[in-house]
Amino acid sequence: MRLRNVPGAIEILSQTTNFVSDPMQNKGYWRQYFGNSNTIHLEIGSGKGRFITQLAEQNPDINYIAMEKFSTVSLKLIQKIPEKGFPNLVLLHQDAKDLTEIFHKGELHRLYLNFSDPWPKDRHFKRRLTYKDFLDKYKHILTPEGEIHFKTDNKELFEFSLEQFTENQWTLKTVTQDLHNSKFAAQNIMTEYEMRFSSKGHPIYMLIAKTN
Amino acid sequence: MRLRNVPGAIEILSQTTNFVSDPMQNKGYWRQYFGNSNTIHLEIGSGKGRFITQLAEQNPDINYIAMEKFSTVSLKLIQKIPEKGFPNLVLLHQDAKDLTEIFHKGELHRLYLNFSDPWPKDRHFKRRLTYKDFLDKYKHILTPEGEIHFKTDNKELFEFSLEQFTENQWTLKTVTQDLHNSKFAAQNIMTEYEMRFSSKGHPIYMLIAKTN
Repeated sequence: MRLRNVPGAIEILSQTTNFVSDPMQNKGYWRQYFGNSNTIHLEIGSGKGRFITQLAEQNPDINYIAMEKFSTVSLKLIQKIPEKGFPNLVLLHQDAKDLTEIFHKGELHRLYLNFSDPWPKDRHFKRRLTYKDFLDKYKHILTPEGEIHFKTDNKELFEFSLEQFTENQWTLKTVTQDLHNSKFAAQNIMTEYEMRFSSKGHPIYMLIAKTN
Repeated sequence: MRLRNVPGAIEILSQTTNFVSDPMQNKGYWRQYFGNSNTIHLEIGSGKGRFITQLAEQNPDINYIAMEKFSTVSLKLIQKIPEKGFPNLVLLHQDAKDLTEIFHKGELHRLYLNFSDPWPKDRHFKRRLTYKDFLDKYKHILTPEGEIHFKTDNKELFEFSLEQFTENQWTLKTVTQDLHNSKFAAQNIMTEYEMRFSSKGHPIYMLIAKTN
């Protein structure tokens, strides 16, 4: 279940130091914004934020951007940020379709897509975040060595994604159909949804795609 | 159904110009054997030979090696070779486990694996031709730009293969779960098995893996 926007959420977010209300102004200048030359990783659909806040804490030398369309969900994320803040984590309230307005060509090193909406109906396939049009945007904003790390519990979305990536000149360096029982399990950080879902015994699918 | 070896088959094969009875002697010298500097493609498990003989006919500038464990099946293959022969096609009666005895490091540009035995029982996974130990042999005999083109009708073998390739430092440049309805259908050459199987409406899975 997704929380939808509620009035006032944006105002609350705007008061946190980690929230960037006008990210398009930073296009091409994200490293300057972070004040260092570290690489930048973006999570699209950061939800309640367990995944990205744990990464930000574990990897102070990587800059993280959490992007979430629904501001109410992001209120859960900012509750996970300690009072002194994470200097390497910012939060955006934006939609994936605007990515190329927010990031310059080659500005990011990695994208995370975790449990994106599967849009199961055939006629909605263009809304899936691994549809060709989105992949083209991702390729644009990633460096030539860039990667996408994609997790889902939805087998149909996973199979759709395998084909979309490879049909559009991405290569797959990792594919697992049972992440939690694979060699990648040890370093995996679970999202809130993943913890709940996998406790029922269902497998998690994961792939890593490269732009070349 | 696979035909097993019958007495006399090897003797019949030995009389055809396309059959190489002692291929280990050619290790490192396959281009000299073909008498040109063209690239070499190998099909492991060439069966009745529709696939590889059509390729050999369509691509005179590529050298093809058809490898088949069961000599009786190969009798069907040689019946497809015109009387004057294909100068760019040879047939071996060998087992995939001996590949590195037959080919030198980097001697091949492409491998085809078509409808390999799925070995469905868990305890037999090491016999599947996309198991790690085989992939290591393939990587050794392929050039650094080499590719494996793999087709199967067995979903479990396909999923096993997706994981084996990516866990062992191969990348996938193509993945399709319905080859005959994909953009790759036009250039696809069907094997005898594939024609029979797909006429029942079942999907064919295909992937292309690269060594880097």
